[in-house]
Amino acid sequence: MTTETEPEIIYSRLIDETIAAVPPLDAAAMAAARERQAILTKPPGSLGRLETLSVQLAGITGQPVPQIAGKKIIVFAGDHLVTAEGVSPYPAEVTPQMVQNFLNGGAAINALAAQAGAELTVVDAGVNANLPLHPNLTTLKPGFGSANIAQGPAMHNWQAVRCLETGIRLAGLWMADKGFNLIAAGEMGIGNTTPSAAITAAITGADVDAVTGRGAGLDDAGLAAKIAIVRQALEINQPDGANGFDVLMKVGGFEIGMMAGLILGGAARRCIVVLDGFISGAAALIAWRLCPLVAERVIAAHRSVEPGHNAALDAMGLTPLLDLEMRLGEGTGAALAMPIIEAAARCLSDMATFAEAGVSDRADE
Amino acid sequence: MTTETEPEIIYSRLIDETIAAVPPLDAAAMAAARERQAILTKPPGSLGRLETLSVQLAGITGQPVPQIAGKKIIVFAGDHLVTAEGVSPYPAEVTPQMVQNFLNGGAAINALAAQAGAELTVVDAGVNANLPLHPNLTTLKPGFGSANIAQGPAMHNWQAVRCLETGIRLAGLWMADKGFNLIAAGEMGIGNTTPSAAITAAITGADVDAVTGRGAGLDDAGLAAKIAIVRQALEINQPDGANGFDVLMKVGGFEIGMMAGLILGGAARRCIVVLDGFISGAAALIAWRLCPLVAERVIAAHRSVEPGHNAALDAMGLTPLLDLEMRLGEGTGAALAMPIIEAAARCLSDMATFAEAGVSDRADE
Repeated sequence: MTTETEPEIIYSRLIDETIAAVPPLDAAAMAAARERQAILTKPPGSLGRLETLSVQLAGITGQPVPQIAGKKIIVFAGDHLVTAEGVSPYPAEVTPQMVQNFLNGGAAINALAAQAGAELTVVDAGVNANLPLHPNLTTLKPGFGSANIAQGPAMHNWQAVRCLETGIRLAGLWMADKGFNLIAAGEMGIGNTTPSAAITAAITGADVDAVTGRGAGLDDAGLAAKIAIVRQALEINQPDGANGFDVLMKVGGFEIGMMAGLILGGAARRCIVVLDGFISGAAALIAWRLCPLVAERVIAAHRSVEPGHNAALDAMGLTPLLDLEMRLGEGTGAALAMPIIEAAARCLSDMATFAEAGVSDRADE
Repeated sequence: MTTETEPEIIYSRLIDETIAAVPPLDAAAMAAARERQAILTKPPGSLGRLETLSVQLAGITGQPVPQIAGKKIIVFAGDHLVTAEGVSPYPAEVTPQMVQNFLNGGAAINALAAQAGAELTVVDAGVNANLPLHPNLTTLKPGFGSANIAQGPAMHNWQAVRCLETGIRLAGLWMADKGFNLIAAGEMGIGNTTPSAAITAAITGADVDAVTGRGAGLDDAGLAAKIAIVRQALEINQPDGANGFDVLMKVGGFEIGMMAGLILGGAARRCIVVLDGFISGAAALIAWRLCPLVAERVIAAHRSVEPGHNAALDAMGLTPLLDLEMRLGEGTGAALAMPIIEAAARCLSDMATFAEAGVSDRADE
């Protein structure tokens, strides 16, 4: 794995093996799912995207009638020292405060994970504070915030490796190994739409103007300043958009790297990986550049209001399930989409066929 | 309640009292919900439509922090003798067969109601067959199929009254009185996109071409013939689009009338009424013409592929939550949207405020 400008080797057998282990969609399972959809008691195609989604789930899981065994969301929290440049209307101290809010059950993702019936776990991926011990918090950070990308690379090579490896391991140990097969990574990190914009511009080739948004709510002057910072980060670091690892290391962030690892690891284990919003999309772009097969094994939950999200979705050829004008992150969009994905699987598995139900098929067939 | 062309009196105190009992949205509850949204631990507006939806739920229920007490869907099945004109690719015998399928748990609505955690009950609203007794089936039909609208009116005055009264009573007895406040009406009726197209054209003023679709899957020739039948139905019956009762009686259907009654009754009881697809939209148009306040008390679950659905949604000023290319009916879209509506309520009720969580608000505020 090398960049054209500056050769880099990822000294990680785990990452290489995980990338190699991501399978293409299971064509036989998909054909079986498609055949079954055609004989269920409804006009063919009348369940719309629930039908095509069920076929994709068959391809992802390798099960002709895919079963949702369990739902789990891991929220990765990390800081970004680029906040020193004034890219967010919220102070950086909000990152550790929101981690406490997650642990106390008071955030939007707590409400939405509960609604979805999804288990929720929080990882300190790089918060710039020593967080109090808590049974539902695991500290796996390779540093106290990724470095200021307006001044130099976000992280060392070893930190990028560590992030990807951590995400891969968690997809295995906490998710696939425990029977969760509908999974998502959420995030919290004041300032993290800035590296996400840089990642999206680097990988999709879109203009910085088009992929940089107001984040948590910048005004016009704040947005203009943020665009300038993103341009500066790309100019100084010169990430190679063809190389996901290089992009992560130069303009990424710790929580984004772990999310990319989780996407890779989940894909390799045939989990159904649900993408959230803009930051999740940036992480997916990194995973996708490392392993193009990722694109067909992830489900885009929703279309974020952040303008850069469209560029990421378009690059990977993804059409989101929901468009509810959300822009919160945390995994909230993914949680909201999980019941729809489960519904798609459930229709395929639970509905009767015309023959089973004794219902007449079309008069002309 | 009169038409301009042919005065009609609905001899129903229940219908008149129900219409009079539909309240405007509760402005005080909405203001309280809006204020609470602004201090919850997230950037203001970042939950997008979940936030505006939660405010609407407050207005509908009259609760500043609305609680979803229970979810229930009633599926109304009815036949349409206009099927004699060949408007559906499926034989009419599919209506009673599908009722059995609902009762046996094999239809899409069974899978999706279970996924949503919604109770499901089936009503024979006018199936053209004597259905076997079943504990989950209630027979309330005013006739064995509504009449062929291509030849004359769909039903007698008393039948239209009976349908509306039945829907109103069920919204009370089976729903509001039992603590269900998130409710929907689904339907099954071979041929029922034909009266729905006629209703939609009559009430919205849209052209028949624009509101008549392929239903369960007509080919081009079938669609052209169906459009001609809808035109003929409107020509022969001359429904008064300003009068919902007249439209129901002349070009409606039994299950559509009961759905309209359920919408009115649910609105009067401050239930959150979820609309499904095209047929549900036609029923809502009838309820809306009888009582314009209905429009702000219903939630449009999804946008159907049936082209006429857009005309109905636009007329009532509704924006659907989902757009998943579905066109099945039965209440499937409504069931799929219920968890999203519940999620909106849950965020408002369960999230911590900035003060409660000790999270810093915006640096500039």
